[in-house]
Amino acid sequence: MLLTAFQSVRNHSVALCAALEPEDYVVQPTADVSPPKWHLAHITWFWETFVLVPHMPGYRVFHDDFSYVFNSYYETVGKRVLRTQRGNLSRPTVADVYHYRRYVDEHMTRFLVNDPTDSDLRNLIVLGLNHEQQHQELLVTDIKYILGHNPLLPALAMPVTEYVPNPVSAPITVPEGVYEIGYQGGMPGEPNPFYFDNELGVHKVYLAKTTLAGQLVTNAEYLEFMAAGGYQHFGYWLADGWAWVNANAVQAPLYWHDIDGQWHYYTFGGLVPIDPAAPVCHVSQYEADAFARWRGTRLPTEFEWEVAAGLAPLNWGQRWEWTNSAYLPYPGFVTAGGAVGEYNGKFMSNQLVLRGGSVATPAGHSRPTYRNFFQPDKQWQYTGIRLIQA
Amino acid sequence: MLLTAFQSVRNHSVALCAALEPEDYVVQPTADVSPPKWHLAHITWFWETFVLVPHMPGYRVFHDDFSYVFNSYYETVGKRVLRTQRGNLSRPTVADVYHYRRYVDEHMTRFLVNDPTDSDLRNLIVLGLNHEQQHQELLVTDIKYILGHNPLLPALAMPVTEYVPNPVSAPITVPEGVYEIGYQGGMPGEPNPFYFDNELGVHKVYLAKTTLAGQLVTNAEYLEFMAAGGYQHFGYWLADGWAWVNANAVQAPLYWHDIDGQWHYYTFGGLVPIDPAAPVCHVSQYEADAFARWRGTRLPTEFEWEVAAGLAPLNWGQRWEWTNSAYLPYPGFVTAGGAVGEYNGKFMSNQLVLRGGSVATPAGHSRPTYRNFFQPDKQWQYTGIRLIQA
Amino acid sequence: MLLTAFQSVRNHSVALCAALEPEDYVVQPTADVSPPKWHLAHITWFWETFVLVPHMPGYRVFHDDFSYVFNSYYETVGKRVLRTQRGNLSRPTVADVYHYRRYVDEHMTRFLVNDPTDSDLRNLIVLGLNHEQQHQELLVTDIKYILGHNPLLPALAMPVTEYVPNPVSAPITVPEGVYEIGYQGGMPGEPNPFYFDNELGVHKVYLAKTTLAGQLVTNAEYLEFMAAGGYQHFGYWLADGWAWVNANAVQAPLYWHDIDGQWHYYTFGGLVPIDPAAPVCHVSQYEADAFARWRGTRLPTEFEWEVAAGLAPLNWGQRWEWTNSAYLPYPGFVTAGGAVGEYNGKFMSNQLVLRGGSVATPAGHSRPTYRNFFQPDKQWQYTGIRLIQA
Amino acid sequence: MLLTAFQSVRNHSVALCAALEPEDYVVQPTADVSPPKWHLAHITWFWETFVLVPHMPGYRVFHDDFSYVFNSYYETVGKRVLRTQRGNLSRPTVADVYHYRRYVDEHMTRFLVNDPTDSDLRNLIVLGLNHEQQHQELLVTDIKYILGHNPLLPALAMPVTEYVPNPVSAPITVPEGVYEIGYQGGMPGEPNPFYFDNELGVHKVYLAKTTLAGQLVTNAEYLEFMAAGGYQHFGYWLADGWAWVNANAVQAPLYWHDIDGQWHYYTFGGLVPIDPAAPVCHVSQYEADAFARWRGTRLPTEFEWEVAAGLAPLNWGQRWEWTNSAYLPYPGFVTAGGAVGEYNGKFMSNQLVLRGGSVATPAGHSRPTYRNFFQPDKQWQYTGIRLIQA
Repeated sequence: MLLTAFQSVRNHSVALCAALEPEDYVVQPTADVSPPKWHLAHITWFWETFVLVPHMPGYRVFHDDFSYVFNSYYETVGKRVLRTQRGNLSRPTVADVYHYRRYVDEHMTRFLVNDPTDSDLRNLIVLGLNHEQQHQELLVTDIKYILGHNPLLPALAMPVTEYVPNPVSAPITVPEGVYEIGYQGGMPGEPNPFYFDNELGVHKVYLAKTTLAGQLVTNAEYLEFMAAGGYQHFGYWLADGWAWVNANAVQAPLYWHDIDGQWHYYTFGGLVPIDPAAPVCHVSQYEADAFARWRGTRLPTEFEWEVAAGLAPLNWGQRWEWTNSAYLPYPGFVTAGGAVGEYNGKFMSNQLVLRGGSVATPAGHSRPTYRNFFQPDKQWQYTGIRLIQA
Repeated sequence: MLLTAFQSVRNHSVALCAALEPEDYVVQPTADVSPPKWHLAHITWFWETFVLVPHMPGYRVFHDDFSYVFNSYYETVGKRVLRTQRGNLSRPTVADVYHYRRYVDEHMTRFLVNDPTDSDLRNLIVLGLNHEQQHQELLVTDIKYILGHNPLLPALAMPVTEYVPNPVSAPITVPEGVYEIGYQGGMPGEPNPFYFDNELGVHKVYLAKTTLAGQLVTNAEYLEFMAAGGYQHFGYWLADGWAWVNANAVQAPLYWHDIDGQWHYYTFGGLVPIDPAAPVCHVSQYEADAFARWRGTRLPTEFEWEVAAGLAPLNWGQRWEWTNSAYLPYPGFVTAGGAVGEYNGKFMSNQLVLRGGSVATPAGHSRPTYRNFFQPDKQWQYTGIRLIQA
Repeated sequence: MLLTAFQSVRNHSVALCAALEPEDYVVQPTADVSPPKWHLAHITWFWETFVLVPHMPGYRVFHDDFSYVFNSYYETVGKRVLRTQRGNLSRPTVADVYHYRRYVDEHMTRFLVNDPTDSDLRNLIVLGLNHEQQHQELLVTDIKYILGHNPLLPALAMPVTEYVPNPVSAPITVPEGVYEIGYQGGMPGEPNPFYFDNELGVHKVYLAKTTLAGQLVTNAEYLEFMAAGGYQHFGYWLADGWAWVNANAVQAPLYWHDIDGQWHYYTFGGLVPIDPAAPVCHVSQYEADAFARWRGTRLPTEFEWEVAAGLAPLNWGQRWEWTNSAYLPYPGFVTAGGAVGEYNGKFMSNQLVLRGGSVATPAGHSRPTYRNFFQPDKQWQYTGIRLIQA
Repeated sequence: MLLTAFQSVRNHSVALCAALEPEDYVVQPTADVSPPKWHLAHITWFWETFVLVPHMPGYRVFHDDFSYVFNSYYETVGKRVLRTQRGNLSRPTVADVYHYRRYVDEHMTRFLVNDPTDSDLRNLIVLGLNHEQQHQELLVTDIKYILGHNPLLPALAMPVTEYVPNPVSAPITVPEGVYEIGYQGGMPGEPNPFYFDNELGVHKVYLAKTTLAGQLVTNAEYLEFMAAGGYQHFGYWLADGWAWVNANAVQAPLYWHDIDGQWHYYTFGGLVPIDPAAPVCHVSQYEADAFARWRGTRLPTEFEWEVAAGLAPLNWGQRWEWTNSAYLPYPGFVTAGGAVGEYNGKFMSNQLVLRGGSVATPAGHSRPTYRNFFQPDKQWQYTGIRLIQA
């Protein structure tokens, strides 16, 4: 029944914010980050706009101006607040936003109590659940950014275990062959099978024989790269990456601090010495690519990753794993109509695919065909590195 | 007794924020504006840093990092948080800041209960009171900016009457002569006479005969300027002013909105039609200067204004009145040593003097020799226009 | 014999500049464009630095500072003049640069008169010839930009025929299969077979059945897109493309001017009405992609293009054809050591592949495996559109 | 006779450019600098637009588009080329510009051969001569900037002696009193008395007793400031000045280079060791003000300077002397109508007055009432420092 899933997902969004002070909901220290208040309201706005308004007779929107304030990139649904201005908005207040959530949740509950049977509508609701889960991961990464860039570096009780040692795992060899790539339908008996449009268009890809590392690059390995002058030698870097290093004076992954010669990182538990055995985190694709060159190898493509993940347990799920595949449409990709159609396709330029999932990804949200995507300079997600065996 | 004055001023800062939601304390929609939370903490930090730490034996600072976070421009007191980043800080929270205030107020009360007799110390405390009053005016203007740039344009119960009709007043003629300018000491019996360092250096200025308008330019007059194409004809504008108009697409004073052909402005009571009889507000010096040219006259100098204010009641106090005097040191101006010495002198470039006071200026804070100063493009203060009679 | 090829290529660079005034050699109206003087000196510097200095005993560099001034992106050969500052340099003069060319050409001639036999050296010289040919194309596009952005829109006698009608050509169908991609060696008897490192790493790619248009999109077709509101509807555009359209107020391809309702474009012959039958030119990849969406189809991948070009005469060579393939390394791509190794690999981020060649490409320079690459917003190359048949 | 003066001034402009290569005429390495070609054409355009077109019957403009290209800030005479884009224009060529000059000069000669008698017309012509002299000084400073920012630091035969030792001169004391300020008419028998509108409005100013240094600050004195950490201690600087120092990493006056521990400066003769006895040059007003504070004194006001210059020979003329007076209208200043009226008044914001003249000022161009003006961060003029005696 969709109502159960709906309530479970909705509750998790609120749980993620349980430890926040009202002020933490408001700020936007960089354009990539959205205020938690905005995330909470935006995912509520999704339900109101795409489910309640068109499908629930007699539904009245909570507030006429909220659509303007909490729209994100849906250009077909009115003028949106520019992303970089979200942090200037003190109103609606956090209390207003929770009021809005309750209002919408009550109507959604009344709406879902008779489990919808129309498959388009069911699909839309499942899309909404997955949309909300995506914002749940962003809630974690954005809250971390907000607190991790505060001079007080405050600790916060968040339900995320950021660093655990890397499990030992054997390398996985992908034999030469032509493979089918893309979402192929749920397993028999799987409830609510779901996929994003960008996973569609099952198609064949030829792969040469390749071996992927069984485990992610650790902090200890990354420290070797740093000690070897990784951030000082342009030869390891793409030209754009080298420009990024210099323009931003990058010397280490995000959240790393050199305190009297000992590297620490900021975690939700506060500032702690790095754990050498844990997988490196918060690296850009430029850093991942430079690390791979320094090691004389390369990052996998998204296709190698997907096939490997189907052959053996890749132990994925700790870090989003940067690939060297550009985020582009699969053959036969078709953009859906309307606002929902703007979901993924319009971002297919200047971004790279990440595969797997992270400690901040809601349970059950990802799968081997899942295509996450970010620009190559982004560090604030829980990103890591898996190499092709040299 | 200083304690009474201290408590009165301190209470007024809190009263100004009584109607705020926690979120309103946090945001910084433009670099000129500081979050109310920052103002409240900064003025508290002043007392702690300049009075309690050096003068109260055994005082322990409330929090080691607050000095870093809430310093403003006192370069001698450590590294400060860049002004444009103040709006990124969710911590310390509003509650933390009020806790900080109470902690410092309790110590200050204990400190002041035996009225200090040392005149340097007394002067420092009176400076602190005036410093806090300056931030009280900024609290009003910054809160207005925060709410007046929110798409919801919320109303807020603030103890400020922004628009009242202009009192009718006769022009004031300053006869030709050499006049003494600058603060000359309190009247006999005046309690706590105070002045800022920038008012010091009494000196003579020759003035030709001039007549200042008895009243401020009204909204009705300003609308005539707009109707006459004031914002469209470069001939009325300074070159920098014209560049400012075009770069910012300025069409009216700040907070004005054209709704179906009728001009409204945002006030703390919400959006209301403009009152033609009230003095125009929230104009830049560029606008004031262009208006004066359009009328075939000019703005007064700060010296003409000061002399006129000594000759007759100028009815000042509704709007800070732009002069055409650059903010420069008086002859003999000497910068005081230490952090307090950074107070005024270092800003004596690229700014213009405003005289008088505004509806947001705390009672008793200003005086005829008071020199306020801002860059000529600033609109967010309660600024207005008084002309020389053409 | 290499000397003949050397002299032929070197002469062509000079011929391209024959009609320039000295002033035309100097300016840099945008960061992507280099002053013609810089191109001429840079390609000379290549011969001096990589051939004469290491290989000709007793050679003395022409001027000690030229290496600093005319280096481009070879980070291993000293500090280079920032690309955006090239247009600020009046010295060395054009005459100095031609003097430099003659000096280097005389030494190169003496060096090549005994045809080198060492294959590494021969390969380096052939690389130099191809490097110079790449700058020859840039000379054409950069000279066009310089004159085409001058308010006088001057005509210039350049040996480039920019617009000829599109030849009629049948569509080309690529059957499903696994194909080999990449440079596979010259044909038997081919003199000086050459390839860039980015074409290496022959590898297999699976392709589904696809049909490429036999001819390029014409101006007439592109005008239909414009008339249909192509630049006004975000639905046709990638998100980054739509941001680019709005930030730059793009309304048409580069060099197009609407004169009294009739579209003209700037050519080396001056401003002329557009020729409806000629292939559209000077479009960004964003525009090419939006056009394809409007037509309900897509751009080819670089692999589809390469295979199609091997199956039938694609009639390529008028326009560089945007693909929807990101510029990434082929499997097994290895960066060469030293400065020459910086040639291509370091640019493999944030760019897209173009295939074919253009009216500005030197004869014999391109081939079906050639991979040109630019950022998706670039318009100043002779770029065009070939569609997948819908 | 005006013709003689016209020919003399016109010839001097050409003489200043005699040593230039064509390329030197074209570039614009920073927004403040204009290409020499532009200066030459702009001053020619002045004669064409304001004298020949309105006053010479039958005159035909040389080229319809030149008005657009070579207008500067005269907003009433059509759309001008943005100042920062002047360096992108290779056309009109230098030869075209000289052709234009000759064409206009021939017509002006024909026009002036019958010495005009109308006094408005005579005044306009004298204004044009002074306008051209202003651009002659800019030609010198802009040519220096172009060559002094070229990595080759080329020498150039310019008729300017930049550094000669400071003459020894007694301090000048201005007694307390009310003085008349502003241009009061030429001396009896003075030919072509001239003044700019900004010198008009003779008015009285009260001055306290002050003593100005008899000579300018030398390089030796300035080196002491540098050695004392002048550029490292914020306490000497205005807040805007300190921000400027840090944003631009300023460590010395413009054109100074530290070569193996010995300071050199770039001159038209090339790079030479600094002369300790010569007056410091190429300092911003921020630097002049900081130097004065370090010495425990201040810069003069423009009124003190003007009065002192009338009392005794100030030995002015080597360096434009920064004052601490904002560039503001004198009482009674009236902007003239039309384009000529835009000459000075519109710049009366955010600039400071400089008095005197420099080694680059044409002979006879300046006078004690002359008001030059620049923003306080500008270094590229021949600016120096005269102190009030501490």
